[in-house]
Amino acid sequence: MDATAPTSKWSQLASQNAVIEFIDVTLRGCAQVMFQNNPLTGLFFFAAIFVGGFGEGNPAMAFGCLLGTVVATLFGMHLKDRASWKAGLYGYNGCLVGAALPTFLANTPTLWLCIILGSIVSVIVMICIADILKTWKVAALTAPFVLVTWAMLLASYAFTGLDGSALPTPALAHPLVQDSDLAYSASQFVHSTLYGISEVFLISSVISGLLFLIGLAVESLWAAVFAICGTVLAVLTAMFLGADQASVNNGMYAFSAVLTAIALGSTFNTPSWRVLIYTIVGVIFTVFVQGAMNTVLTPAGIPTLTMPFVLASWLFLVPNKDVMPAHRQ
Amino acid sequence: MDATAPTSKWSQLASQNAVIEFIDVTLRGCAQVMFQNNPLTGLFFFAAIFVGGFGEGNPAMAFGCLLGTVVATLFGMHLKDRASWKAGLYGYNGCLVGAALPTFLANTPTLWLCIILGSIVSVIVMICIADILKTWKVAALTAPFVLVTWAMLLASYAFTGLDGSALPTPALAHPLVQDSDLAYSASQFVHSTLYGISEVFLISSVISGLLFLIGLAVESLWAAVFAICGTVLAVLTAMFLGADQASVNNGMYAFSAVLTAIALGSTFNTPSWRVLIYTIVGVIFTVFVQGAMNTVLTPAGIPTLTMPFVLASWLFLVPNKDVMPAHRQ
Amino acid sequence: MDATAPTSKWSQLASQNAVIEFIDVTLRGCAQVMFQNNPLTGLFFFAAIFVGGFGEGNPAMAFGCLLGTVVATLFGMHLKDRASWKAGLYGYNGCLVGAALPTFLANTPTLWLCIILGSIVSVIVMICIADILKTWKVAALTAPFVLVTWAMLLASYAFTGLDGSALPTPALAHPLVQDSDLAYSASQFVHSTLYGISEVFLISSVISGLLFLIGLAVESLWAAVFAICGTVLAVLTAMFLGADQASVNNGMYAFSAVLTAIALGSTFNTPSWRVLIYTIVGVIFTVFVQGAMNTVLTPAGIPTLTMPFVLASWLFLVPNKDVMPAHRQ
Repeated sequence: MDATAPTSKWSQLASQNAVIEFIDVTLRGCAQVMFQNNPLTGLFFFAAIFVGGFGEGNPAMAFGCLLGTVVATLFGMHLKDRASWKAGLYGYNGCLVGAALPTFLANTPTLWLCIILGSIVSVIVMICIADILKTWKVAALTAPFVLVTWAMLLASYAFTGLDGSALPTPALAHPLVQDSDLAYSASQFVHSTLYGISEVFLISSVISGLLFLIGLAVESLWAAVFAICGTVLAVLTAMFLGADQASVNNGMYAFSAVLTAIALGSTFNTPSWRVLIYTIVGVIFTVFVQGAMNTVLTPAGIPTLTMPFVLASWLFLVPNKDVMPAHRQ
Repeated sequence: MDATAPTSKWSQLASQNAVIEFIDVTLRGCAQVMFQNNPLTGLFFFAAIFVGGFGEGNPAMAFGCLLGTVVATLFGMHLKDRASWKAGLYGYNGCLVGAALPTFLANTPTLWLCIILGSIVSVIVMICIADILKTWKVAALTAPFVLVTWAMLLASYAFTGLDGSALPTPALAHPLVQDSDLAYSASQFVHSTLYGISEVFLISSVISGLLFLIGLAVESLWAAVFAICGTVLAVLTAMFLGADQASVNNGMYAFSAVLTAIALGSTFNTPSWRVLIYTIVGVIFTVFVQGAMNTVLTPAGIPTLTMPFVLASWLFLVPNKDVMPAHRQ
Repeated sequence: MDATAPTSKWSQLASQNAVIEFIDVTLRGCAQVMFQNNPLTGLFFFAAIFVGGFGEGNPAMAFGCLLGTVVATLFGMHLKDRASWKAGLYGYNGCLVGAALPTFLANTPTLWLCIILGSIVSVIVMICIADILKTWKVAALTAPFVLVTWAMLLASYAFTGLDGSALPTPALAHPLVQDSDLAYSASQFVHSTLYGISEVFLISSVISGLLFLIGLAVESLWAAVFAICGTVLAVLTAMFLGADQASVNNGMYAFSAVLTAIALGSTFNTPSWRVLIYTIVGVIFTVFVQGAMNTVLTPAGIPTLTMPFVLASWLFLVPNKDVMPAHRQ
C-alpha cells in the first residue's frame, strides 16, 4: 500500500523538509478515508471535496474537511506511533468529522471549535479502537469518525450553542410508503452510482465522484474497480428491495457499500474468485444494515454516517482467515 | 457432549456417506439451538417445529427453519473448521433465522431470498463472534441469529419489498397497565411453562414443548431438568413482578430463561449446589433483562428474540472461573 | 493507593477480627466509587450519603446505599480474588445500585429485593467486565452499576410490581428551548459545582459535596483537586454550550466529568502537564457525551447515570500508553 514510482521525488522531499512532510501526511490522511496511502490520491480527494462543497453551496464543509485533517495530523504528530502517523492513519477520521459537522450543524464559531475538538478526540478514539481491535487483527475503519460525530450531533439537541437544524427530526419509525412518481432512466442510474461514491464524503456531485475514482485509480486500480462495482451492486440491491427511491437516487444506499467493497475486495484481501463472492455477499448485506440503521436511528434524529460499512465490514473481516485460503495481513 | 450409544451405527454410516453425513450435521445444527450435539435430538426438534408450524397455521416457518439449517450447513461445509461444522455449530443460527423471518415477515419470494442470505451471513457472524469471544472462553450462543434477524426486520421498515406487518408497531414505552381480567389456573400454568420451552423456536404449542423436552432428554437428562426448572422459575418470577399476564401466558418471559438455565446449569457447568444457586440468580436476572429489552425495543418495533438470554448468559459465563470451584471448558 | 499512616492501627484490627475486616471492606467499597482505597474515605462518604439522603427527604436512598454495599461485599467474600475484595472493588457498584434504585423507584418491599438482587448481580457483572477489559489494562469503572440499574429501571416499565414514577417520561428528543428566566450568581455557581460532586451519588447537597471532598482529600489531595477542577470546568463548558440551565445548576452536567477528572488526572495517571491537558480534553468531551446520552436516552425514559463518565474514560484510558510518556499501571 505504499506509494512508489510516481511520488518518489516527493517522498524524498518530504523526508527532508518538515513542512512538506506535514503536507504529505495531511494528504495521505485524506486518502486513507478510502484506505489509500498516497498523497496524490489525497490531492485528488481534496479537489473533489472542494468541487463538491462549493458546488453544493456549502464551502464550510470543504474547509472543515481541510481543518479536521490538519488538526488531527498535528495532534497525531505528538504520539508515539510514527508509522501510523506517516501513513495518514491519524488524519482520516478528522477529515470526515470536518466534513460531517458543517453538513448538519449551522455555521457558527462554536461549530469550528467543535471541529477542532472533534478532530483531536477522533485521534484518541482511533488509537482506542485500533488497540482493542488489534486483538483480532482488524482495523478501526471509520468508527472513530462516526462515534465522535454522533456524540456531537446528539449533543446538539441538548445545547442551544449547537444548531442542528439540518438534522432529521426525531420520529417513530414506520413502514416506508414509496413515492412512485419518480421516473427512472439510465442517466439517473449513472448519477446515483457516482453519488454513491461521493457520498462517502457527504457530497452529491458527479464530478466529485469521478475525481474520487481517479484518486483511487492513481494508487490502486482494483480499489477503483471495486468502488464502481460496489456502488452499482448497492444501487441495484436497494432498488430490488424497494428502498426509498429519492434516497437511492442520492447514493444514500451506496456510500457504505462502496467502502465495504473496497475494504473486502482490495484492501484487506487479494482479489480472487472466492474474495469476489465474499465481497458481493458483504455489499448486499451492507445494504440491509443501511436500511436497518436508518430505521433504528429515526427516533434519535441522527444520520447513520458510515456505520453500516463499519459494522458489516467488521463482521466480514474478523472471520477472514477462517474463510479465505490466503490473505494479506 | 457427543452422542454415543444410541447413534453409534448412525455415526458409522455418516462417516462413510457424504449425504448421510450432511443430514447428520443438519440435524445436529437444529439440536444445537439448545446446545445438544445429537442428530436424534435434532430429529425430535424438527418434529416439534413442524408440529408447531402447521399447528399455528404458519408452515412457512417450519420450512424456513429447515431451509435455514440446510443453507447454513451447506455454506459452513466450505470453511476451515471441520470440527465446528460436524458438531452442527454452523447450523443453529440459520435454523433460527429461518424460523424468525417467516414469523414476522409476509410470505413473498423476497422472504425466501432473505432466509438464504440471512443463513449464510449468520455463519459469518457466528465465526466473527466466536473468534472475538474465545479470548474469554465464551461461546457465541444465539447472538448471530439475533443480530442478523434484527438487521433484516429493521430493514423491513425501509424496504417495501419486505412486508413486516406482523412486527409490533414502533411506539414510545409507557408503564404497563395490567389487564386484570385474565383468570389463572394450574392448567394455564402448565401451558405457560411448555410454551416457554417451545417459544425458543417462536412456537406456542404444548405438544412442541413436550417434543423439545424429549429431544433434550435423549442427549442430556440434566438439560431437560434445567429447561423445566428454568421455565417454571421464569414464569413465577414474571408473575411475582407483575409482568403483562398475556405475555406470561404465552411463555414470552420464559423462553430466554430456559436457555439461560440449560446453558448455566448443564452445558457450561457440571451441576452442583453452587451451580444451581448461580443458575437461579441467572434465570431471575434474565427475566429482568427480558422486561428491560421489551421496553427499550418498543420504539424500534422489533422483538427481543433470544437476546435477553444471550446478554444474561454472557454476563454470567465470563466470570464462571472466578465463581465456580471447577468447571468444564 | 493503599491507606497507610492514619489507618495503620485500624488495619491491624481488621486483619485480626473478621467483623472489623468486613466493616473495613464495606467502607472501602463505598470509597471506591471515587477510586479511593481507604476506609476513612468511605466513612466520610457514608456520612455525606446519610446527610444527603435525609436532607432530601429520601432516607431510603441512604439505607439502600448501605444495604447495597453490604450485600455486594458479602457476596464478593465467597469469590476467589481476595485482593480485589479487600480493596473494596466488589462493593462500589452495589453501593451505587442501592443509591439509584430508591431514587427512581417507589419504596416498596419489591424495591428492597431488587437492591439485593442488583447488588449481587453487580458483582458478577463487575468480574465479567473487569475480565474482558483487562485484555487492554482498563478498569470496569462504574459500568456494572449502570448496566444493572438500567436493566431494572427499564424493566420497571414492563412490571407493575416496580413503580418507576420518578423516572423521566419516554419522549422523542427535540432541540432544547432554553428557559432564560433563570438568574445566575456566584453563589449559584459554587452550589452547582458542589452538586456536581454530590450527584456522583445522586444527591444534590452542598454539605454532602463538601464531605465527599474531605473524604477524597483524606486519601489523595490530587483526587480532591481534580474533582474540584473537573466540576468547575464541566459547569463552565455546559454553560458555554448552552445546556439546560436548570440541569447545569443541579450539577447534572458535572458529576460524570468529576469522575473523568479524578480517573484521568490522578487515579490512572501521575499528574503532569501532559496529563493535565489530556484530562481537560477528556472532561470537556465528557460534557458532550453527557448531552448526547441525554438525547439518546430520551425515548427510553431512563437517566444516563454515570455512563458518560464510563464511555469517555474508557476512550481516553485505552490509548493512555500511546499518549503518555510514563504511567502507573
